[in-house]
Amino acid sequence: MRYMIYALLVSAAVTILLGPVLIPLLKRLKFGQTERELGPKSHLTKQGTPTIGGLMFIFGILAGTLSFSLSATEMVLPALLCTVGFALVGFLDDFLKVRVKNTVGLRPYQKIIAQFLIAGILAVYAYKSPFIGSKLYVPFTGAEWDLGLFYVPFVMFVIIGTVNSVNLTDGLDGLASGVTLIYSLAMGIAFLYLSSALLLPADAGQAQQTQFAAELNSMAVFACAVAGGCLGFLRFNTYPAQVFMGDTGSLGLGGAVAVMAVFSRCVLLLPIMGACFVASTVSVILQVGSYKLRKKRIFKMAPLHHHFELQGHSETRIVAVYMILTTALCLLCLLAFQ
Amino acid sequence: MRYMIYALLVSAAVTILLGPVLIPLLKRLKFGQTERELGPKSHLTKQGTPTIGGLMFIFGILAGTLSFSLSATEMVLPALLCTVGFALVGFLDDFLKVRVKNTVGLRPYQKIIAQFLIAGILAVYAYKSPFIGSKLYVPFTGAEWDLGLFYVPFVMFVIIGTVNSVNLTDGLDGLASGVTLIYSLAMGIAFLYLSSALLLPADAGQAQQTQFAAELNSMAVFACAVAGGCLGFLRFNTYPAQVFMGDTGSLGLGGAVAVMAVFSRCVLLLPIMGACFVASTVSVILQVGSYKLRKKRIFKMAPLHHHFELQGHSETRIVAVYMILTTALCLLCLLAFQ
Repeated sequence: MRYMIYALLVSAAVTILLGPVLIPLLKRLKFGQTERELGPKSHLTKQGTPTIGGLMFIFGILAGTLSFSLSATEMVLPALLCTVGFALVGFLDDFLKVRVKNTVGLRPYQKIIAQFLIAGILAVYAYKSPFIGSKLYVPFTGAEWDLGLFYVPFVMFVIIGTVNSVNLTDGLDGLASGVTLIYSLAMGIAFLYLSSALLLPADAGQAQQTQFAAELNSMAVFACAVAGGCLGFLRFNTYPAQVFMGDTGSLGLGGAVAVMAVFSRCVLLLPIMGACFVASTVSVILQVGSYKLRKKRIFKMAPLHHHFELQGHSETRIVAVYMILTTALCLLCLLAFQ
Repeated sequence: MRYMIYALLVSAAVTILLGPVLIPLLKRLKFGQTERELGPKSHLTKQGTPTIGGLMFIFGILAGTLSFSLSATEMVLPALLCTVGFALVGFLDDFLKVRVKNTVGLRPYQKIIAQFLIAGILAVYAYKSPFIGSKLYVPFTGAEWDLGLFYVPFVMFVIIGTVNSVNLTDGLDGLASGVTLIYSLAMGIAFLYLSSALLLPADAGQAQQTQFAAELNSMAVFACAVAGGCLGFLRFNTYPAQVFMGDTGSLGLGGAVAVMAVFSRCVLLLPIMGACFVASTVSVILQVGSYKLRKKRIFKMAPLHHHFELQGHSETRIVAVYMILTTALCLLCLLAFQ
């Protein structure tokens, strides 16, 4: 647990210290947010707030994780690569948005190919790993569910879905970072529990059990580093935001959220712990579907947080409610680990 | 740990469910905040926001604690009485403020007598208790510091100081509740650790050890209930606040914060974990002292959070920074428990 605290503090410190360096730099390079014409009108005041701030916590997460998890790297290095990989896709997107001065960025097919590639590699890696494999825990029952080869497309779907959900959730000051902060803390505790319970089949040798525990411990360190990055970023991203994470940040965080769920084998808990992410995506799907089928909108605006905003709730209140709800759901899910 | 999660969730749920009942009631009874004429001008817009909202989480804390801690009550009942006792003093104060329509409330000497009384009873109780006694842990050293009879006035000073510090900290939307939320979560983990380590002298019998562990576990439940109350209250108290906790809430929370520190025997960690509370009090003392001695002010306004506000930082940002700082300091202090 000591290393988890260290990782969180180092990650938060690096993120916070990068703020006064990176934010003025982003401003000077004119990496300002171009607000979508389709977004809420009140958000037009956010025009010009520097974006790509996600770089701050990407470096924070790297520093926090690499400093305190190098004794066991078979899970934590792929987790970092997944986070950084998606962040890179996001960075390209952000970068192009600024250079060509529209709000499109990478073409959709380019994004999708890149995301499929990373998700595919990660899914195959997890499938082949002796510490992960094709079995999922079924929460609260103690049972396991063996997906066999179907595991790979399933996990790819989970990863791509999660990454884009976090991306959609990043629409209010402190929303994506706040919700991810709580989710990551909960996953840190979950990994800590998993590493203390010996969960490999009984025929696994002692050495393998020990290594498995160490790998899961490193993932707990990674989870805390992600939490620390979010915590540090909230220093600047709380309403009124001084910087946005951009796709760099939201795709990176999405990668981290997904990889924690996959490597813990607790993917089935993800829709509960990450209900706020799910809500963003589902509301968009419903809105688009309803409009195409019935020419009627269900929400005043999708994703859901903009709907609440247009209902007259203040941005800070919506973020608080999302965070409180996530806390309650994550605590409920932690009950599965006892 | 299961009961800690339950207590947090129940306390938060009760607090949140009381909101739609109590807030309109307080409004109808005209328990609106009367902003101090001496406070920041921007706060005049808060005039009329209902106060005494602390009642919500006082009931939440009672419900969460009493539901899940009744197997061991020698610590947890006095802790609840301390919380409710101070809340009652605060309630009288709030009530008088509204009835006589000034911002004074209870006369200072009345408040001080009531606070001395509660603090004195609690200090003597702790001194006499076989589970607490006159020894404090010296953090990070493993040593203990026996204060002897001096323990009683020392603890009274700690309690009264803490209660009034939390009271002073309650000046921005979500500040006192947010900081106390994090402090309480950390204390919950601390109590959980203390209950698993066997810390009574070796000559204590097995039965006494077992009871001691159960008592500390109940305190962990209490700490989580306090955290849950704060979490639920933030639903309404986040900027822009729909309700204030009033002295009812801030003295009650102060009592809870103090009693957790005293009963854990980790009083020496309190100035670090509660640095934000300390900052409020110290800034007021420095400000008043400096003005009396040198006719010069040190801060633009005391307590410290108003100073930052007048420097142009937004209320939400100041609250976020206080919470982030408290998180970091509490995590550092948790390193003492390993």
